[in-house]
Amino acid sequence: MNTPSPVSAATLEALRHVSTATVTTQLMGHGLRNTYLQGVLPLNPAQTRMVGEAFTLRYIPSREDIDVLSIFQDYDHPQRRAIESVGADTILVIDARGQTRSACLGRILALRLLRCGGAGIVTDGSVRDSPGFLTLDLPTFAAGVSATTVLGQHHAVDMQVPIGCAGVAVYPGDIIVGDGEGVACIPRHLAAEVADAAVRQEHLEEFVVSRIEAGEALRGIYPPNEQTLADYQRWAEQHPLASGTPDAGTS
Amino acid sequence: MNTPSPVSAATLEALRHVSTATVTTQLMGHGLRNTYLQGVLPLNPAQTRMVGEAFTLRYIPSREDIDVLSIFQDYDHPQRRAIESVGADTILVIDARGQTRSACLGRILALRLLRCGGAGIVTDGSVRDSPGFLTLDLPTFAAGVSATTVLGQHHAVDMQVPIGCAGVAVYPGDIIVGDGEGVACIPRHLAAEVADAAVRQEHLEEFVVSRIEAGEALRGIYPPNEQTLADYQRWAEQHPLASGTPDAGTS
Amino acid sequence: MNTPSPVSAATLEALRHVSTATVTTQLMGHGLRNTYLQGVLPLNPAQTRMVGEAFTLRYIPSREDIDVLSIFQDYDHPQRRAIESVGADTILVIDARGQTRSACLGRILALRLLRCGGAGIVTDGSVRDSPGFLTLDLPTFAAGVSATTVLGQHHAVDMQVPIGCAGVAVYPGDIIVGDGEGVACIPRHLAAEVADAAVRQEHLEEFVVSRIEAGEALRGIYPPNEQTLADYQRWAEQHPLASGTPDAGTS
Amino acid sequence: MNTPSPVSAATLEALRHVSTATVTTQLMGHGLRNTYLQGVLPLNPAQTRMVGEAFTLRYIPSREDIDVLSIFQDYDHPQRRAIESVGADTILVIDARGQTRSACLGRILALRLLRCGGAGIVTDGSVRDSPGFLTLDLPTFAAGVSATTVLGQHHAVDMQVPIGCAGVAVYPGDIIVGDGEGVACIPRHLAAEVADAAVRQEHLEEFVVSRIEAGEALRGIYPPNEQTLADYQRWAEQHPLASGTPDAGTS
Amino acid sequence: MNTPSPVSAATLEALRHVSTATVTTQLMGHGLRNTYLQGVLPLNPAQTRMVGEAFTLRYIPSREDIDVLSIFQDYDHPQRRAIESVGADTILVIDARGQTRSACLGRILALRLLRCGGAGIVTDGSVRDSPGFLTLDLPTFAAGVSATTVLGQHHAVDMQVPIGCAGVAVYPGDIIVGDGEGVACIPRHLAAEVADAAVRQEHLEEFVVSRIEAGEALRGIYPPNEQTLADYQRWAEQHPLASGTPDAGTS
Amino acid sequence: MNTPSPVSAATLEALRHVSTATVTTQLMGHGLRNTYLQGVLPLNPAQTRMVGEAFTLRYIPSREDIDVLSIFQDYDHPQRRAIESVGADTILVIDARGQTRSACLGRILALRLLRCGGAGIVTDGSVRDSPGFLTLDLPTFAAGVSATTVLGQHHAVDMQVPIGCAGVAVYPGDIIVGDGEGVACIPRHLAAEVADAAVRQEHLEEFVVSRIEAGEALRGIYPPNEQTLADYQRWAEQHPLASGTPDAGTS
Repeated sequence: MNTPSPVSAATLEALRHVSTATVTTQLMGHGLRNTYLQGVLPLNPAQTRMVGEAFTLRYIPSREDIDVLSIFQDYDHPQRRAIESVGADTILVIDARGQTRSACLGRILALRLLRCGGAGIVTDGSVRDSPGFLTLDLPTFAAGVSATTVLGQHHAVDMQVPIGCAGVAVYPGDIIVGDGEGVACIPRHLAAEVADAAVRQEHLEEFVVSRIEAGEALRGIYPPNEQTLADYQRWAEQHPLASGTPDAGTS
Repeated sequence: MNTPSPVSAATLEALRHVSTATVTTQLMGHGLRNTYLQGVLPLNPAQTRMVGEAFTLRYIPSREDIDVLSIFQDYDHPQRRAIESVGADTILVIDARGQTRSACLGRILALRLLRCGGAGIVTDGSVRDSPGFLTLDLPTFAAGVSATTVLGQHHAVDMQVPIGCAGVAVYPGDIIVGDGEGVACIPRHLAAEVADAAVRQEHLEEFVVSRIEAGEALRGIYPPNEQTLADYQRWAEQHPLASGTPDAGTS
Repeated sequence: MNTPSPVSAATLEALRHVSTATVTTQLMGHGLRNTYLQGVLPLNPAQTRMVGEAFTLRYIPSREDIDVLSIFQDYDHPQRRAIESVGADTILVIDARGQTRSACLGRILALRLLRCGGAGIVTDGSVRDSPGFLTLDLPTFAAGVSATTVLGQHHAVDMQVPIGCAGVAVYPGDIIVGDGEGVACIPRHLAAEVADAAVRQEHLEEFVVSRIEAGEALRGIYPPNEQTLADYQRWAEQHPLASGTPDAGTS
Repeated sequence: MNTPSPVSAATLEALRHVSTATVTTQLMGHGLRNTYLQGVLPLNPAQTRMVGEAFTLRYIPSREDIDVLSIFQDYDHPQRRAIESVGADTILVIDARGQTRSACLGRILALRLLRCGGAGIVTDGSVRDSPGFLTLDLPTFAAGVSATTVLGQHHAVDMQVPIGCAGVAVYPGDIIVGDGEGVACIPRHLAAEVADAAVRQEHLEEFVVSRIEAGEALRGIYPPNEQTLADYQRWAEQHPLASGTPDAGTS
Repeated sequence: MNTPSPVSAATLEALRHVSTATVTTQLMGHGLRNTYLQGVLPLNPAQTRMVGEAFTLRYIPSREDIDVLSIFQDYDHPQRRAIESVGADTILVIDARGQTRSACLGRILALRLLRCGGAGIVTDGSVRDSPGFLTLDLPTFAAGVSATTVLGQHHAVDMQVPIGCAGVAVYPGDIIVGDGEGVACIPRHLAAEVADAAVRQEHLEEFVVSRIEAGEALRGIYPPNEQTLADYQRWAEQHPLASGTPDAGTS
Repeated sequence: MNTPSPVSAATLEALRHVSTATVTTQLMGHGLRNTYLQGVLPLNPAQTRMVGEAFTLRYIPSREDIDVLSIFQDYDHPQRRAIESVGADTILVIDARGQTRSACLGRILALRLLRCGGAGIVTDGSVRDSPGFLTLDLPTFAAGVSATTVLGQHHAVDMQVPIGCAGVAVYPGDIIVGDGEGVACIPRHLAAEVADAAVRQEHLEEFVVSRIEAGEALRGIYPPNEQTLADYQRWAEQHPLASGTPDAGTS
């Protein structure tokens, strides 16, 4: 079910224009109630929009005799290898078991990931050098900040395995979407369908909002009844979906 | 004790000029130690000042067979009815049992509430579309944000009943006060007395602060001893209480 | 081990130029894994840099018959005495047992501490009048905010005793360092050594970052291998450590 | 959907013979994933079996001026009225918002409920006089114990409204089932169907267990494949379902 | 307020016959709502009854360079000194900041405390060697168990200072009462009054229970109205308070 | 470091006679402060003693479209395969991310594991059918109980990989020790050394306890000074270490 079926550039582009709120609503329509990574907030408020494939990294608790400062002499340490492996349009998702007392990584590794073309970072743990992330052009979402190095609480053990992050299942290749509200995870096989429906939902909501702003009551408008849907169709003719959004006929 | 005794416009206006810190101090003087809604923070830092009567809405856990996307086809769903029922100078207070994984409401409903004249929103749950709240001219306080719709975790069950919100008892008609620090709840029958005393306390503290800023020690100044109180009386003659504050003789 | 060995002005000055992330890494090199005060965040984002000796204040739970509003008539109440006792380059560290429902102190006391020359405040509890702290020129770190007065949950019992704060042991005279990421505590006898090594670590990392920004991979660069270290030595000749940093030969 | 459709004595009797584990499995088959009241444990290990209709009681936070020791002079106080209202085969379910610092009720009220024919008590709060519950012939499940009276944290506000208890929606008239593992809530309209299927599931599992105990591997046995199901049918002819279980043809 | 006013043997004896539930009700009558140590449970169910003066011991977080296995070579280490200092009718109360990952003490120290005449142990942390406590004739209440030595998380710093334990203020010399429900703390100056009233309350409740057991409704009986109180007076003449309870006229 | 170096039968046997408290003390002597699985308690108080190699199983959050009741039709599902793979003297350790709302497994699987020769089960999640575990001859430790099936919250993803369990790193092949206090994890390469030292520590403590029971003070006895150690040597000549404990000369 997670065979790496291709996800088109159009799908990724469409997802860049919809909110995580819309995405999770669409996923709930597919019976998936748990797709938003609760409690994972952006470090740079000006850099929250991200879309990409999940590249997973898994941490377990550190052990004092293994996790010593010298381990990073090994450039093939999983944490370092993961950073170097993240490609374009890919988002590093770290399972830190929700433990925030030590950081998962700091600004130097994030900078390298940015240079590698990575599209973002998500962790249910902490980052360090957090003031440096405030000005980094890389969407980064974490559950906390901590000055303490990864060794204090974490041991990077493997990558590209299915993980849990912030209470949500994340499989390698799933499509991660971030905005100012946080992060949602779309199972890969649903990405095209969700992207298309999300774009259409937001187009309709744009119309609904215009009516609410004009002072109309919720009744008949939100959700729209048949009359409102008909009004929307007319409005949509003059406010077509932006180009760059997926063609429903082909996606 | 919660008979809807009238609360004067002067009382509401006075409360718009005092902080939640002052309000809770006054309430502690009445023996009430638990009147601040802990952990409920503003979504729009530029819109935190609010005063109004509590309109309560109660949520219980959702159930998968009842709480499906189609329920909102019923425009009399309690969540929707509550939004339409909130009047001027009224604040919607939602008991979400402190559960933040799903949102209590989103931006469209908040926009409608604003159009209805509502003065604000408070919940010990989450809101969704939170980036949209950043620029909404409606004071909104929540315990978190979540992209997930209300259905994921909540079922709106009834309104205008006494509730708990963020650990504090809120009765319909109680007076809710919000500022940059959060939200306090004043039992309705104490509103006039608290408003008046709060204004006077802050006037005195304005004088105290001027002395501390001038370099004086706490001893004799904070709290003020008799000499400082006499000094304050002289200062107050030249810095009278602003108009618009309640007349102690009539409130 | 906590004899008040002198801490030089050069050490304090050096610590003003390094991050808490660097400080905790150095302390981990000494085997200390728990020196960062988790969950203690700055109230004024423009005032986070602070370095000073810890002046400790300890709170226990309040009791309704002891902790009444009138207790502050006693100007020798430990909370008030602590504020007046904090000297220059000293940071008030309050053990509030991680309880945030009531505040540890408010803006008037913080203002007095600032006038006394205090360098900052840290607590694992809350502060009140938090909007006032947003513009106060005093670095203040807390685990939360609460409008409720100290009496609601706390009783100030003694000062200048060893305490726990945010899960970290803090002894009077320890050196507290704050930045945008939070607060670290350096055992006093390690301050000079840590300050010196931290400055050197950050100088080396400045070079490492320049290489990563230039597009080099982590391998060989971070951590630096012998070749990179040799490159750094050459770079360092042209980018000497800033004056004001400790002389390794004498610290 | 919660019209008080009759629930037959046969259904209630059947439910007395199946475990909460089986009940929740059946409910998951109906798409209901959240029907077990997590963290609610029996006070008397010898009295855990209970089945009955839910009679709900709702608590909000107490307020010091309302919730004083004298309120119980009012014999119509909701807490007291609820106890007197509970009938035969009925279980009192108290929504205490998961707050355990004060008790929801004590042994005297539980004794009265027992005399009234009540079948049990469940709360996500605490009980007091807990040593007395150890020997009381009334199944009672709570999230904790506390010597502190209800007034310390709770105010009984209304009854027979839908509530949340231990994270689960409970509607008046739902069927509550308790055993040594805790408590499950069956939506009333599903009770007959769940009871019947649960009895059949446990009968099949009795056969499966006999095979596992005999040393067979899970493969083919658990879950049973066609061969094992055929073996079960033969076994079932000699080990018929006990009388008193529902007749699948009529339920 | 905590001058070591004498507490009579009669008061201590009376408290041995009343429950913590009754004690906290009496304290609430004095306005004290927070006197029960929530979450602190007995290790030996057969040894829960204890009454004695609080001897306090305070822990802060451990530090790896100070808290090493060799520190106990110093027989004057505060943890060890505290054990040797506890006298007859005295209860060791340890403030462990609610941290349970490391133990506060183990069975050998508890055994020594028992030999010293100590009446019990309470901590909001853990004990180790907990299976050994199951059969120790010393009432011991803890918030958890942990095999890890005290050094893993705790540093004993001083004794006989006011502390917080399980969220309750405990001053040296306060009277600690334990039973199967847990532990309550009586401010020393209230001990005689509370003991006397508690004995009388339980005597009255014995009568109330007899009526409820006989099938009477709560109305008029609980709380007792004037008629029931008159009935109690007659009953009390034939069921006098046991000797050994305090004489209300002299306490 | 986790090469499957052989662990002798003598080492395993020795560990069956020492407590988890002693084991963690020995591990702290090796600098390992985090080896006790906090909060993981035995389900059958009569079956707590267990020693064996860790066989690990890892769970991630479930997803509604993958984790449906029919998945167990696949007898090669990792949860089922893990049960069948556990061999003699092996303990199944399940990483459930500390989530207890759904069970990790139930009694039927535990029964099969017992038939396969498994030595025990540990999880930081829940088990279901917990009343059935009360009488099962298999040491089982869990963080909770839940009637809800594994599908409600968990997806078994892989086995025999390093995991975290109850905050502790567990590598396949590590030696797990359980007793009435809970569970400790010994890194495999330290097992022999720890076993030997633990047996010797307990022998010495047996002597220390005899002296404390005889009424001696802690000073000089605990920890033993040179005189006490000499006394112990004499005592040990007459109370030799039991056979079956490791030979210090060869381990």
